[in-house]
Amino acid sequence: MAYLDHAATTPMLAEALEAYVAAAREVGNPSSLHAAGRHARRLVEESRERIAAALGARPSEVVFTSGGTESDNLATKGIFWARRSASLNHNRVVASAVEHHAVMDAVEWLGTHEGAQISWLPVDSGGRVDPSAVAAVIDQYADEIAVISVQWANNEVGTLQPVHELAALAAAAGIPFHTDAVQAVGQVPVDFTASGAAAMTVTGHKVGGPVGVGALLLGRDVACTPLLHGGGQERDVRSGTLDTAGVVAFATAVETTVKSQVEYAARVGALRDDLVARVRAAVPDVICNGMTGDRLPGNAHFSFPGCEGDALLLLLDAAGIYCSTGSACSAGVAQPSHVLIAMGADDDRARSSLRFTLGHTSTTADIDALVAALPGAVERARRATAWKTPR
Amino acid sequence: MAYLDHAATTPMLAEALEAYVAAAREVGNPSSLHAAGRHARRLVEESRERIAAALGARPSEVVFTSGGTESDNLATKGIFWARRSASLNHNRVVASAVEHHAVMDAVEWLGTHEGAQISWLPVDSGGRVDPSAVAAVIDQYADEIAVISVQWANNEVGTLQPVHELAALAAAAGIPFHTDAVQAVGQVPVDFTASGAAAMTVTGHKVGGPVGVGALLLGRDVACTPLLHGGGQERDVRSGTLDTAGVVAFATAVETTVKSQVEYAARVGALRDDLVARVRAAVPDVICNGMTGDRLPGNAHFSFPGCEGDALLLLLDAAGIYCSTGSACSAGVAQPSHVLIAMGADDDRARSSLRFTLGHTSTTADIDALVAALPGAVERARRATAWKTPR
Repeated sequence: MAYLDHAATTPMLAEALEAYVAAAREVGNPSSLHAAGRHARRLVEESRERIAAALGARPSEVVFTSGGTESDNLATKGIFWARRSASLNHNRVVASAVEHHAVMDAVEWLGTHEGAQISWLPVDSGGRVDPSAVAAVIDQYADEIAVISVQWANNEVGTLQPVHELAALAAAAGIPFHTDAVQAVGQVPVDFTASGAAAMTVTGHKVGGPVGVGALLLGRDVACTPLLHGGGQERDVRSGTLDTAGVVAFATAVETTVKSQVEYAARVGALRDDLVARVRAAVPDVICNGMTGDRLPGNAHFSFPGCEGDALLLLLDAAGIYCSTGSACSAGVAQPSHVLIAMGADDDRARSSLRFTLGHTSTTADIDALVAALPGAVERARRATAWKTPR
Repeated sequence: MAYLDHAATTPMLAEALEAYVAAAREVGNPSSLHAAGRHARRLVEESRERIAAALGARPSEVVFTSGGTESDNLATKGIFWARRSASLNHNRVVASAVEHHAVMDAVEWLGTHEGAQISWLPVDSGGRVDPSAVAAVIDQYADEIAVISVQWANNEVGTLQPVHELAALAAAAGIPFHTDAVQAVGQVPVDFTASGAAAMTVTGHKVGGPVGVGALLLGRDVACTPLLHGGGQERDVRSGTLDTAGVVAFATAVETTVKSQVEYAARVGALRDDLVARVRAAVPDVICNGMTGDRLPGNAHFSFPGCEGDALLLLLDAAGIYCSTGSACSAGVAQPSHVLIAMGADDDRARSSLRFTLGHTSTTADIDALVAALPGAVERARRATAWKTPR
């Protein structure tokens, strides 16, 4: 089995699972006032401090959520609502055309359901937002923009965005800037305060922590209307019983992953470069998508001309090679990737694509298995496509 | 240590934690198409079937969420939005005055933020909603009501609501009825289909499952606007990576708890009756709150005249007795309980209250410890109160 889908989810770190189990064996709601509750509260607050320290935030800026999707929805909808409540004029959302569906679909809902105006930021052929495009949108709509959201790193093609520049442009105009850093943490250096962002999405299961736990890092003076009302936990921005065990495991994973980031990026980046070189050699007409530099170390993304990505995925799957046609979150949906389309690919090229993502358990053996299976799978996928659409 | 706060959170069952660990040791996003993803998907779907079978629902009616607060918010806001989108006339929410904050605060937000009209249903001195009050509201506002929400069992005083009657009244008027059954599952028989409800909130950590995992049982033809947009998981009603390990542990806990419910209710109900009798004997002027019958088996709730509940809680805590002044979700907030106020208690009585809740680990020794510590604690709390507010 060669697991080349770490961007969809990566195996939980042993130390994170141990931390989960140790905390789950105790009892106590962190909102309870008795000793058992106060003990749980201490575990949560220590975890908050560890995550803040690892990500360059203040502990009070860490708002625990159920994960990346919730954090993205909370940031886009919550900041939009808060800003529009303060001024009806703030009725525009700006986001890149290559956002994860959790941002993109939340923004589209604000358009259809809340009457928001939307400016989608184009990207270049590498998937990168041009800061001058953001500057132009701000120039044109400064007084209307409620929130700007641009991801730190793309989940499909791994492109890193110039978030520091974009956040600075937004800050200069007094507009809150949100960035989805789900794919970036542990892969590249991520510092919330230094980034200049007002809000940042992070999640557990992409860094070896549990699924179902994440956070929105939220600047202390950034107003954000809650999505989940109730007990008033998490600065009243996100109610719900705090998941002590999940939070402790999440903190363990973030801390561990961030601590080893430089070494990880070197090791996994070298593996990835090897993967790219060997895939090119095995399938000479393959097209590499995304940037050469400014890219997540574990990400490789290809179009295989004449193949259906879905068919190729299943053929590789039969050989024990696990990869993805795009975001796992929209896998199974017969839509060409909005990311590749935004990068200028046509439908055929978009549909012929596969993503291979490496992670902390990856080895050369995974790449050996891939390049052994790939040429045969590509050939079979091409024959299947040719049969379906004779040219 | 006598843990008498099971309604806040109850220890995770050993079999649920084992199920969590076994699933967490595997890798795979249930939305991924390869074998690892399909395996995770199978674990999720088997869990969905087990939960559905235990709670009298169809598997397709189980929408996994991050827990009770999210399910309550999704049901109230989501059904409200969907119904109002279908007809602007549907701009009223009906809910009981004793709902958990996750419903109450969500409904209030619909009022302040979305311009919804709200009808709060009064309760009697036992905390029970009178079906004739619901019938009257429906008579008056049938064409305006978007959603009705009444809990199955109260989290503070344990009162069971006549949900079957209420759901039938709502259904006859074509209005979706939601019930928060977080406190009821495993304590009393709960059957979603038989209840007649359109939507029902359940959660893991009140039944020995993990925190951070729950579900909204949602009738197949009940329209519900998502709170969390994104990958389109869970019938497009709730996006976000499915927490395979959490879901498997949740299903294990629900199944185990529901299977042993009758035996549990007899055993824990007898313990609770013993607790009530001995507390009455130890503090003769204590006032019992809530119903005598129609009550959760593990719940006992008292007012201790002349005491501040917070002070009494801390004195008991010092003696190793863990209880609550009300909902853990609003503990620490110096507000008298909205539940007791709705039941007709004055501020003093509401502030002098303590909740003791038993659960699967409770024994007679817990009650022994409580009645040993209680008279001294009450006396000291009374002296402190008398000193603060001389009468």
